[in-house]
Amino acid sequence: MTTADHGIADAIDEARLWQRLMRMAEIGATANGGVDRPALSACDNESRRLMLAWAAELGLEASIDEMANLYLRRPGTDPSAAPVLTGSHLDSQPTGGKFDGAYGVIAAFEALEAIERAGLETRRAIEVVSWTNEEGSRFQPGCLGSAVFAGKLRLEDLDDIRDAAGTSATTALAETLAGLGDLDRRAGGFPVAAYLEVHIEQGPRLEAAGDTIGVVTGIQGSRRFGVEVRGVEAHAGTEPMASRKDALKTACRIVGALEEVTADPADRVRFTVGRFEVFPGSPNTVPGRVFFTLDLRHPEQAVIDRLTTEIETAVAANTGVCEASLVVRASAAPVHFDAGLQAMIGQQADALGLGQMALPSFAGHDAGPLSAVCPAGLIFVPCAGGVSHNEAESATPEDLAAGTRVLANCLVELAR
Amino acid sequence: MTTADHGIADAIDEARLWQRLMRMAEIGATANGGVDRPALSACDNESRRLMLAWAAELGLEASIDEMANLYLRRPGTDPSAAPVLTGSHLDSQPTGGKFDGAYGVIAAFEALEAIERAGLETRRAIEVVSWTNEEGSRFQPGCLGSAVFAGKLRLEDLDDIRDAAGTSATTALAETLAGLGDLDRRAGGFPVAAYLEVHIEQGPRLEAAGDTIGVVTGIQGSRRFGVEVRGVEAHAGTEPMASRKDALKTACRIVGALEEVTADPADRVRFTVGRFEVFPGSPNTVPGRVFFTLDLRHPEQAVIDRLTTEIETAVAANTGVCEASLVVRASAAPVHFDAGLQAMIGQQADALGLGQMALPSFAGHDAGPLSAVCPAGLIFVPCAGGVSHNEAESATPEDLAAGTRVLANCLVELAR
Repeated sequence: MTTADHGIADAIDEARLWQRLMRMAEIGATANGGVDRPALSACDNESRRLMLAWAAELGLEASIDEMANLYLRRPGTDPSAAPVLTGSHLDSQPTGGKFDGAYGVIAAFEALEAIERAGLETRRAIEVVSWTNEEGSRFQPGCLGSAVFAGKLRLEDLDDIRDAAGTSATTALAETLAGLGDLDRRAGGFPVAAYLEVHIEQGPRLEAAGDTIGVVTGIQGSRRFGVEVRGVEAHAGTEPMASRKDALKTACRIVGALEEVTADPADRVRFTVGRFEVFPGSPNTVPGRVFFTLDLRHPEQAVIDRLTTEIETAVAANTGVCEASLVVRASAAPVHFDAGLQAMIGQQADALGLGQMALPSFAGHDAGPLSAVCPAGLIFVPCAGGVSHNEAESATPEDLAAGTRVLANCLVELAR
Repeated sequence: MTTADHGIADAIDEARLWQRLMRMAEIGATANGGVDRPALSACDNESRRLMLAWAAELGLEASIDEMANLYLRRPGTDPSAAPVLTGSHLDSQPTGGKFDGAYGVIAAFEALEAIERAGLETRRAIEVVSWTNEEGSRFQPGCLGSAVFAGKLRLEDLDDIRDAAGTSATTALAETLAGLGDLDRRAGGFPVAAYLEVHIEQGPRLEAAGDTIGVVTGIQGSRRFGVEVRGVEAHAGTEPMASRKDALKTACRIVGALEEVTADPADRVRFTVGRFEVFPGSPNTVPGRVFFTLDLRHPEQAVIDRLTTEIETAVAANTGVCEASLVVRASAAPVHFDAGLQAMIGQQADALGLGQMALPSFAGHDAGPLSAVCPAGLIFVPCAGGVSHNEAESATPEDLAAGTRVLANCLVELAR
């Protein structure tokens, strides 16, 4: 098997791919060069509209499902064969970068464009997909769209999911769907022959090794918690320190204790307190309530389970005169990607003469939920310094094109 | 000197006072029985309008100054004599109570009503005043209106003061003044013969001692700081712990260290971290920036100065891989109230047969800035459990009326 067979890799246009990425980055652009495209927002819909405009030029068939996951289909010769899906997401962190997610969707589109321009027929349809709310920054958990597609979450579960402003995911989804009412609707969860996603690594390993292609072996498991500390609001000038029930000082103490509990000399544990809200938030009132989130990840489920117990113990032990409650908001077991797809990615990288390494993913991706319903694979390309979830996120046009070439060749292979 | 001379104390109407307090508490009422009346907000103006409606019934002369401080004047027989001022503030904490501030304004009004109904002439005018932005919750520092009146702050300084939404105090003030354009404008900072304020104690001492009247000796000094911790935003799943610059964990460590530094076995130091904001606030992004406020108070300036140095050292020592900056946002030296006024309050309480105690104030009050420009006094009445800056704040109609009687008798005395 070589890439010379069909010439698709050569048809990948590095400049066109880059221009599309830069055009997409204008939607929700921030002053510091990043993007802010919350899931199910006006920006999010604008990004779908941009994909739809490009898809119309290429003659792809557009549709959405009940989660507003967007599909752009190039039919195969066998209408009865399950399609090959490829894509990622267009939503971003509040101060996110240009490449996280958008690269996977636009690279998939570029692969389809190369296949279409080459006039190559495939037995299976190939569909570009943009999954809804992968980031998990506006609505938790992340990978909402792909999780519902894979049957890991039910549509009814969205009623209980609210953003920081109190808007339910159900309401935001209905608004988004209303804005896309002109598109064909189809039910998600349809049979899929294979799913393949390309993404920036969001870590420093490829860059450090000088390799271009990461063959992702799996995704570390995660567990997300919410912690609420309740004290008593009081006057900052009058209330004696001895009689205070200060929710903030207690919360800070708990964070310190959890930092100790999760300390890992091997640096495989990931532990983050990302949201931390203090009420009422007045400089001269002792805080009466603090809410904060915990994000715990590790490649081994047993470690996550052990640390969960230790976290519970540490929260209880540091509550002092306040009250505290800890709830699990989401859990994702570690994922192991399809061995056949891993081998195929490696072979296509070899055929293109690209340096490669096998590595696990420390971030969640839509390929995780999809791996439950079909053979799924994930390809990484380097990003500068491993910086991600940051407006400074950066990758080179060359590496992005190389990842797209490997993706395109795999898609042709899978859709044959 | 007895209260029987003029009968003003007997003319104080406990029920009318209470009804006015309850009516005022409807403005900005919260679901939990408190009030939320941010300074220079629509609610704040509504509260002024209510005072103006009552003042019109009583025939008082209404005016405002450049800080939107509201004055309701009952003229004296000598137009050339400086007036006696009495009042407090109508703004509240975000989850404040019904009595903090509003009591002092409405009690002053009740005293004037009693004097007016009794037809008692005074040589000096008596003016009820409601000072702008005493709380310091929307705009820092607090006591803005009285501080500008007393020349401790210039009107231009307001340009640099912004609320959490970024609105400058200058802009909010202009809106408020525009909404009160029908009132007579006068310049603040005019000569004042004396200033007297009545307030709930916001502490537990009167209640514990079974006394009704607190003769306030002074106000503890305070210093407010802002701390900004800057780290680097990163992906919660990918970024190794060893390479993170986590602004939140650093901020929590600093708070813990400051708690140790300010620990005081005598429990005279007051130290509060009231506002604490984390950016970007996404559950799966390592926080890149935290801003928090410090509120430090003590009756002795030397202790505040020593602790300032120790706070500076502790912030620097706990910054770790992040960067941190500490700035002083406001300072108020300890206040010592006029000895003559303290004696007068005590004598009037005695004459009315009310139990009294001398005590310092741990909270800032508009009487603080006023003490720099005229003899100033402050009267406390008990509040349940000392609870304040809390929607559950509570006081009895009897105690509130008793404080108003002492106030009214003192005003007659001062305005003779």
